[in-house]
Order: sequence, then structure tokens, then C-alpha cells
Amino acid sequence: MFRSHNCGALRISDVGNEVTLSGWVQISRDLGGLTFVDLRDRYGITQLVFNMDENEDLCSRARKLGREFVIQATGIVRERSNKNPNRATGEIEIEVKSLNVLNVSKTPPFTIEEESDGGDELRMQYRYLDLRRSPLQNNILFRSKLAIETRKYLDGQNFVEVETPVLIKTTPEGARDFVVPSRMNPGQFYALPQSPQTFKQILMVAGFDRYFQIVKCFRDEDLRADRQPEFTQIDCEMAFVTRDEILDTFEGLTKYLFKTIKGIELQDFPKMSYDEAMRRYGSDKPDVRFDMEFIDFASDMKGKGFGVFDNAEAIIGICAEGIAEKYSNKDLKNLTEWMQRPQIGAKGLVYIKYNEDGSIKSTIGKFYDDAFLKALGEKFGAKTGDIIFMLSGEEEKTRKQLNELRLEMGQRMGLIKEGDFKPLWVVDFPLLEWDEESERFHAMHHPFTSPKQEEIGRMLNGDHETMKSLKADAYDLVINGVEIGGGSIRIHDRDLQSKNFDLLGFSKEEAEKQFGFLLGAFEYGAPPHGGIAFGFDRLCAVLNGKNSIRDFIAFPKNNQGRDMMIDAPSDIHQEQLDELYLDTTYSKEEN
Amino acid sequence: MFRSHNCGALRISDVGNEVTLSGWVQISRDLGGLTFVDLRDRYGITQLVFNMDENEDLCSRARKLGREFVIQATGIVRERSNKNPNRATGEIEIEVKSLNVLNVSKTPPFTIEEESDGGDELRMQYRYLDLRRSPLQNNILFRSKLAIETRKYLDGQNFVEVETPVLIKTTPEGARDFVVPSRMNPGQFYALPQSPQTFKQILMVAGFDRYFQIVKCFRDEDLRADRQPEFTQIDCEMAFVTRDEILDTFEGLTKYLFKTIKGIELQDFPKMSYDEAMRRYGSDKPDVRFDMEFIDFASDMKGKGFGVFDNAEAIIGICAEGIAEKYSNKDLKNLTEWMQRPQIGAKGLVYIKYNEDGSIKSTIGKFYDDAFLKALGEKFGAKTGDIIFMLSGEEEKTRKQLNELRLEMGQRMGLIKEGDFKPLWVVDFPLLEWDEESERFHAMHHPFTSPKQEEIGRMLNGDHETMKSLKADAYDLVINGVEIGGGSIRIHDRDLQSKNFDLLGFSKEEAEKQFGFLLGAFEYGAPPHGGIAFGFDRLCAVLNGKNSIRDFIAFPKNNQGRDMMIDAPSDIHQEQLDELYLDTTYSKEEN
Repeated sequence: MFRSHNCGALRISDVGNEVTLSGWVQISRDLGGLTFVDLRDRYGITQLVFNMDENEDLCSRARKLGREFVIQATGIVRERSNKNPNRATGEIEIEVKSLNVLNVSKTPPFTIEEESDGGDELRMQYRYLDLRRSPLQNNILFRSKLAIETRKYLDGQNFVEVETPVLIKTTPEGARDFVVPSRMNPGQFYALPQSPQTFKQILMVAGFDRYFQIVKCFRDEDLRADRQPEFTQIDCEMAFVTRDEILDTFEGLTKYLFKTIKGIELQDFPKMSYDEAMRRYGSDKPDVRFDMEFIDFASDMKGKGFGVFDNAEAIIGICAEGIAEKYSNKDLKNLTEWMQRPQIGAKGLVYIKYNEDGSIKSTIGKFYDDAFLKALGEKFGAKTGDIIFMLSGEEEKTRKQLNELRLEMGQRMGLIKEGDFKPLWVVDFPLLEWDEESERFHAMHHPFTSPKQEEIGRMLNGDHETMKSLKADAYDLVINGVEIGGGSIRIHDRDLQSKNFDLLGFSKEEAEKQFGFLLGAFEYGAPPHGGIAFGFDRLCAVLNGKNSIRDFIAFPKNNQGRDMMIDAPSDIHQEQLDELYLDTTYSKEEN
Repeated sequence: MFRSHNCGALRISDVGNEVTLSGWVQISRDLGGLTFVDLRDRYGITQLVFNMDENEDLCSRARKLGREFVIQATGIVRERSNKNPNRATGEIEIEVKSLNVLNVSKTPPFTIEEESDGGDELRMQYRYLDLRRSPLQNNILFRSKLAIETRKYLDGQNFVEVETPVLIKTTPEGARDFVVPSRMNPGQFYALPQSPQTFKQILMVAGFDRYFQIVKCFRDEDLRADRQPEFTQIDCEMAFVTRDEILDTFEGLTKYLFKTIKGIELQDFPKMSYDEAMRRYGSDKPDVRFDMEFIDFASDMKGKGFGVFDNAEAIIGICAEGIAEKYSNKDLKNLTEWMQRPQIGAKGLVYIKYNEDGSIKSTIGKFYDDAFLKALGEKFGAKTGDIIFMLSGEEEKTRKQLNELRLEMGQRMGLIKEGDFKPLWVVDFPLLEWDEESERFHAMHHPFTSPKQEEIGRMLNGDHETMKSLKADAYDLVINGVEIGGGSIRIHDRDLQSKNFDLLGFSKEEAEKQFGFLLGAFEYGAPPHGGIAFGFDRLCAVLNGKNSIRDFIAFPKNNQGRDMMIDAPSDIHQEQLDELYLDTTYSKEEN
């Protein structure tokens, strides 16, 4: 037996008992006659005491314990004289009678404390040490709890967890697949699933009615800070349901998770159409924790002799309240430059500053006199002390740029309260996006998304322009401006699915080759169905008010898709390639 | 709203209520004035009634419903005149007022009933229809429940579920890896995990203390009926525990699952050493539901002038009770031929038949007289009516052959009671196996398994012969002769791990390249740890008294590793290969 208790278990009521603990040496302090060792495990920290007067040999050994040594100590629980109220075990300590070093440790390359002094790369290489730090350890424990509560809720709602295969078929649509060469089927490849989409639809056809799975998905994309080549989804599908029944179910899940895990009671989630979200916030995932909604200035500003505005498709802006005094000319110049960076790409930034002294300062003062600007402010509710920012140009681009400005100003102005969660359903997305470059439609959600019921006739019979305006029965769950999940009612009719493949530029043969099994399944009594998938990594991060998903993944990869700890990917033996009937062309080309 | 109730919900207490159901047409019976439709979903079957007299149009439409049509019906719950006691909804039926065909169905290629008339290949191709059959649907629901209960138990024991990566590093040791070419790291490959072994050990080093995961694993092996290229494990690891604490924990899990899911209370699991299992049953996974243990005849049979026996390393047998009369000479000849098939490869089968009339018939009567054989029978408890079977030859081979005979006779003699579950821990496996052909040791369990504590000195200092006799602290859970799980105490000391790699034929460089991260982790305070993994697919099958795991996997692959439904693996586009810096050599060679 290595321990009678863990390092977080002992309390004042245990005083006098003999106990055995095992764990890691967090810190050792030599105070002359006494040596104190903080012993750490997943459950907490307990203070060990060694007394030089009582047992010189033992105390001397204790003094030699280094950081992160693994030890086992047996002793008597004592009440502490100087209690530590910040620690659950802070009222007691262990007067150690025997000590056993289970393993030694070299000095760690960085400090294993709340805040570490190690750089990112180093900490990824020594992930096993970084994971000992309580913030990371808590994240992983949090993730485990979130998964358990998710399963508890969905199980309670009659959802069945079904494992779908990992070795599936490559589909050149959408993001890039990871592929896996098949040895038994030479020259052929499996693909790793980007999502279990078609399988969960097949499960609906098979009658499973309510499916879910917490499942790994894979995308071979160039990586950003918040993307990983493998990520986890809460993947769900339901049959015989309307859109609102799906939204209610997963609003229920979200509320349950917030309540159970964070103790937060969320209000009912508002629904907003995609069109409205774009109009009011210039984003399909608006952060509605603060207002600062878009104002359409076009009809007011045009025809006044300012050519830039007169020729602009859109003139939109926001009103930033009470910042006039804080923002000097230099600040505004900096903000303008920030908007002009390539990441945002604004040509400039128009502002109208309503100074506290009643004066007005504006970049467009040459074209619009003070009286006009004053009236404009009054019309749109800009008060003394506010600044109106305006952007103009091509509609879609300008909305995106103004969205960035709005989010930035929301941050700078402290409009976002910590611990505030504002969920929102964004609904009625466009079904298809026209891509000018490739001259074809792309599915906004995915090729299996149904148009809204009332659009089916238009979709089957409409012309090219009609297709651009079709609305999908698709929806996203957005929390605090982050897309947590998305889904749709699916097509369950073979003809409609074929029509959709056709619009998306699939030939009959391609559609049959890639999705013949699904089209076939639709001929044998496919029920109406729909579903949703939540990004599990992101949900973990958002629930903790964090941006990066990496800290919620035990063994993440870096931006080059490398696991720094195990050093993968790596070379493989030529025999392995030979067995797979493969040759790498890389070394031939580069060396 | 598609339904107010599911097809398994309505009872006599609902009579008089208006309800709406949706589901599949199981069968439609036209009885002249009345038409009955059995409507099916995952939850059950409800009978719908259409009355020609009351609504001719509706009834006519009902008559046209084909098998597996998807319909929605609204009507009034009525008490049935002829109740069906075998069905939960058997006391009621729905008098239908309106009918809505949600989707049509072609005639399925096989019957969707308890027993189907479809062949294996056809049913795999139309898996979505096969999964509608209640035996398969129940298997998948069972699997979901088993996973939920497993998680509930382990969560209750403070285990944390941690997701380990799927894209890892190839290790040429053990079974063959599936590999995944990396586009971002040209010429390099990920591998899919054969198990999360090193990651779960790393989690112990990271302080997670109790880890589990229900996780997909991958092996690119030639497939048998009960093997799949992707399979699921309940994977677990614990730190600061002795072997018996691990066994107790997972004996607890197993008992919990049997109790909760099957209502069966299992007795405490006996432990048997590998050596004893081999001696008594010739197998490291003995089926102990019946006795018929091995008898060592060597000292009795040798030196009596029968050359075959005199020169044999081993002479062992079993006593099959009470079958003398049932087994004619022809039956025994057939049994001998069965033993001589290449799958078993016995040279022959010696028997001594103690006939009911007191006479003895034996294949070795020429060498041993009746008096000897009678005394032999008495010594080993063979009674009138029994048959002793004997095999001789090389020790290991002979034990394996006799194990096959024992299992076969157990089956034939009806010694295995349905619903009988006999779990057994097999412990103290050999650490290393000497392979004559490659002239090197192989790890019997895996390279991370610790020798038993008392063997460590011998391992570090012993000679070549010593290594052959080392015992590992490894264990298997066997139920009814099927290996359900296996595990071991792991090495947590860098030097011992290096020594093991050395014995297994790794050069220092190879060990460092492949497992440097683990060796490194052992230098920073690795705690003592050990673990176990259960085969989840197999556990599902065994709990249901079934042999094949395929029926417990929603979308299994066939023996060529193909998914017959989606038709994977498949060709990929040359552009995909180009992006990965790969060329296939297959078509060049074969075409």
C-alpha cells in the first residue's frame, strides 16, 4: 500500500491518526530544527514536518529531497500552530516517522507553479511537467467533468452514444482530409473523418432516433492558434423533430452544463436571423454582451459632395459612448492605423468627436458642417462625449471591418464583464454561397443541409439567381461572440439531395461514387432528421472565459502540426512504405 | 411536431387520448373492413387501425403503405379487443384519423425481422437496414449502456477521462501501425495508436493518478472473424497502487457491470498463475466453467515399451466422463481426424475407453494390457463409461492441442451452461519470450511491463538463461475462456526501462528515438504505476454470450478491412498524393 490518504484529504478531525501519504515534493524548507516539506498530488498539498531533535537521520534525509522527488511518508496527523486558511488541509500537518523515496527527479526545466517561467515550446516538450501545474491540471479535470455531465444530460434525454468509424472514405469536398494508406487494399486509402456527418444521418435512417457521440474529428488545415488537426466534437442527430425541438434540446444541454458546472443560470437564448446579425453586428457570430450596434448612415451622408461617401455601397458606423475625452488625436490616428493593418484592411476611419465643451471635431469636417454633424448626432443618439466611427465601401467588406472595430472598442471600453455569458441562436443562414472565382456554389453549412421547408419549391424550380437567395434550415449557437456549435435540418429526400449535389457542381457519377450509400439509404424510408455539433474543445475554453483551446487538450500539437513531446510526425522505415505500395517523392525533389 | 409519443409509450391508461406517432411500417394487414398497420420505432411497435366504413379514403391510402414507409399518424388510443401480451403496447391500438406519408421506401433487399433472410455481405452493404433489426439495434443500445455504466463506475472512483491523441508516432515494435502522411511535415508520417500506452503512463508522471478512456485503437493486421482494424478499449492507469489494488478496482468494475446490466452477482474472482493455468488447462485463458483438467501421464506411461511415449517430452490427457457409450469407433476416428486438421495439428489421438460392460478398448492396447489400463483409470479417477484421451509430443505444442480437445469436448458434452460466467485472473506471466528464429526476446505483454518486484535484481544482473525465467507483474482478466482485459505494473525507473529495451534488442539510439520522451519523463519524478485495458467490443459480446464482436459494432469492416456500406478504402486523387509528396507504386507494378 502506497498511501492511506491522498494529499487533499486530511482535516482537523484526523489529528492523532497515523497516515501514509505519497506524492511529489512541491517545496522543502529547512528552518534549522525543523524541516517542512509540501507534498503534492492531484487532490491537494499536505505539509510534512521533520524534527531534527527527534530524528536526526530522518530529518537529514528530508533536507536532501529535491523538487519533484516522489516520496512516501508515514506519520501522525498534528494540528498546525500557524494554520493556512487557503488550503483545505491547512489546519493540519504530518509529523513524519518514516520516509521512503519512491523516485528521484532532476531539476525541472521550468517552475511547476501556478505561473511557470517556461516558454511555450519548452513547456510543450515537457508536457508531463507542465500538466502538473494546477491551472493545466484543473483544465483537464474540468474537461473530464464537462464530458461526464454532457453524457449524463444526453443519456437522460434518450440519446444513444454510437461509435462511428475512424477509418472512412475520403471526400474531396470541404476541408482537406488526412488519409491512411490501406495495406490490404493496395493503392487505396481510408480518410479520417472531418465529422461523422454521413454516419449519423445513416443512424437516423437505421432508426436510432437520438444519437450522440463525443468524438475526435480531423482536418488537415493550416493551423491557427485556436485550431488543431485533431479536435473533439459533441456530435448529435435527432429524427422526427422540428428545428425548434433541436434548438430546445441543446439550449437545454447548454443551460444544464452552465448550471451544473459553473453554477450559472442562463436565460432563454434569443434567436436572430443571419441577415439581422449581419445588419446589426456585421458578423454571423455577434458578441451581444454589449450593444454598440451598427448604424446605417448612407441616406444621411450621401449627396453632400463628399465623393468617397457618394460612391460607397455602404456607409455604416458605431457610436462609442463617453470616450471623446480619453481619445486624443494621436489615439485616433493609432486606431485608424490599427484598422488599416492588412488583417483588417480598412482604407481609413472616419470619426465625429462630440467634445465635452460642445465643439465637434471630425475627419470629414470639410464636407459636413458642425450643424449637420450635430443634427446627425442627435438623430442617432450620439451625446456630448461620444465618438461616432464610420466606414464606407463595399457592403460585405465594410461590415466585416466595422465588426472588428466594434469588438476592439468593446474590449477597450471595458464593456465586457468577466463572467458574463450571452448565448444566441443565429438562424436562417444562406443555403449556398456563390464563388466568383471557381464560378460555382459552395454549401454554406454542408451539402446535406436542407433549405427551409418553404424554400424547397424555389430550390427545385428556381433559376440561378434564386439559388443565391435560398435560406437554409441551419443554425449556430454563439456564446460571447464564439461559435460553439452549428447544425441544420438535413435533406432526407433523394431527389432534393441530388439537386443539391448538382448545384454544388458534382457530376452524377461523382455524387454516386462519394455519397451513393447515403442517396441509397434515402430510398429505404429515411425519416426527417436534423442535428448539431458542438466544438468540445472550444466549449471548454469559453466556459472558462479563455480564448485558446490548446490549454484544454492534454497533448496538443503546435502550429506545424507537431507533437513536441513525442516528436511526431516522424520518418518511417522504407519497409513500411513498401508494404503500403508507397514512395515518398519528397527527398527526391528536395535533396 | 412529428409525434406526441413514441411507438413504445402508450398504455391502457392512455385510452381516449388523441396522439400522434411517427415511425416505420413494419407490416400492413388488410382484413377487408379493417386495415392494421404495425408502426415501429426504436422504442417499440404500436398497432394502427384504419376502418373502411368510417373513412374509405384514409383506409385506401393505408392499404397502399409498403414495408418501411415512414409515416405520421394521428388518432385516438383505443383498447384492443384481442390483446397482445408479448408487446408493451399490446393492450391498445390507434384508431387513425389522419395519415401523412413522410417518406416512401423501396422494398428492402432482405427482411427486417428478428431473423433476416439476407446474406452477410448484403446486410453489411445495407447496414442501415440491418441495424433496424431488433437484435442488432439492441446490441448497439446495449453497447451504449455498457459505456455509460463503465464511465459512471470509474468516475465514482475518481478516475479522470483524458483524451489522448490519435495522430501519434509510429513504433515498429509489436503489431503493424496504420500510418498517416503529414502534409505540413513532408516525407513524415503520423501513426494511429495501437493503444494509448505511453500517453497514459505520461499522464501518471503528470500526476493524474487515475486515468481512463474509452478509446479507439488501431492495428493493421490480417483480420479474423473477431478482429477489426479499429476497435475500442476501456483503457485505464493508476499511480501509487499495488497489483492487488488494481485487480480489486477492475474486479469491482466487472462485478458492477454484470450486476447493473445483467442482474448477475459474480463471486470473487480467483487468481491463477500463468504456470498453473498452462499446467492445468494448457491455456493462458482457460475456460473454467467446467473441469476436465489436464492429467500428467508421463511417469505412468513411460518405460513400458511404447516408443512414441518413451520419446515424448510430454504425455498428457483428459478424462471425458460418461461418454463411452455415446462415442462409437467411428466417432472416435472422426474426433482423431478433427485433431489432425492443420488448425490443431495433432499427430494422433490416444484413447482408453472404459466401456459400461467393464471391458476396455484402447488405441494403445498393444503396449499396455487391460490390467494396467484399469489401474491407470482408477489412479486418475476414470470410471466405467469414461474415456481418457491422451496426447504426446513436444510440451508446449501438446498442451495447446489438448486445450483445443478439452474445449471441444466441453462443448460437445454440454458442460457449458448458458448464462454461466466464470471470471478468472491469470497472473505472473513470463516477462520475456525467446524467439529462436530471430534470436531475440519479445515482450510477452509489452516493453513497459515491470518484472515482479523480487525479480528486479535478477533482471539487472542475471545471465541470458535467467532472463527466460523472469516473471512479469502482468495479469489478464479471463471470462469463460475469453481474454477480456490485460495489464501490468509498469516500469517507472529509467535504468530498468533501458535494460528492458536492451534485452528486447533495441539499440540505445533506437530506444531514444522512439521512446526518448518516456525515458526522459522517468527522470522527473515518475510515480510507481500500473494499469489495465479491457477490450470493449469483446466485453459487449461476452456479456451477451456471443462470439463475434462484429454484431456489437455499428459499422464494422469485413475481413479485407473494407467498409462495405460506404465502400472504403477507395482511390484518391493524384492531387491529394502530390500534396503529400507521395506516389503509389502499386499500379506501376501490377498493370
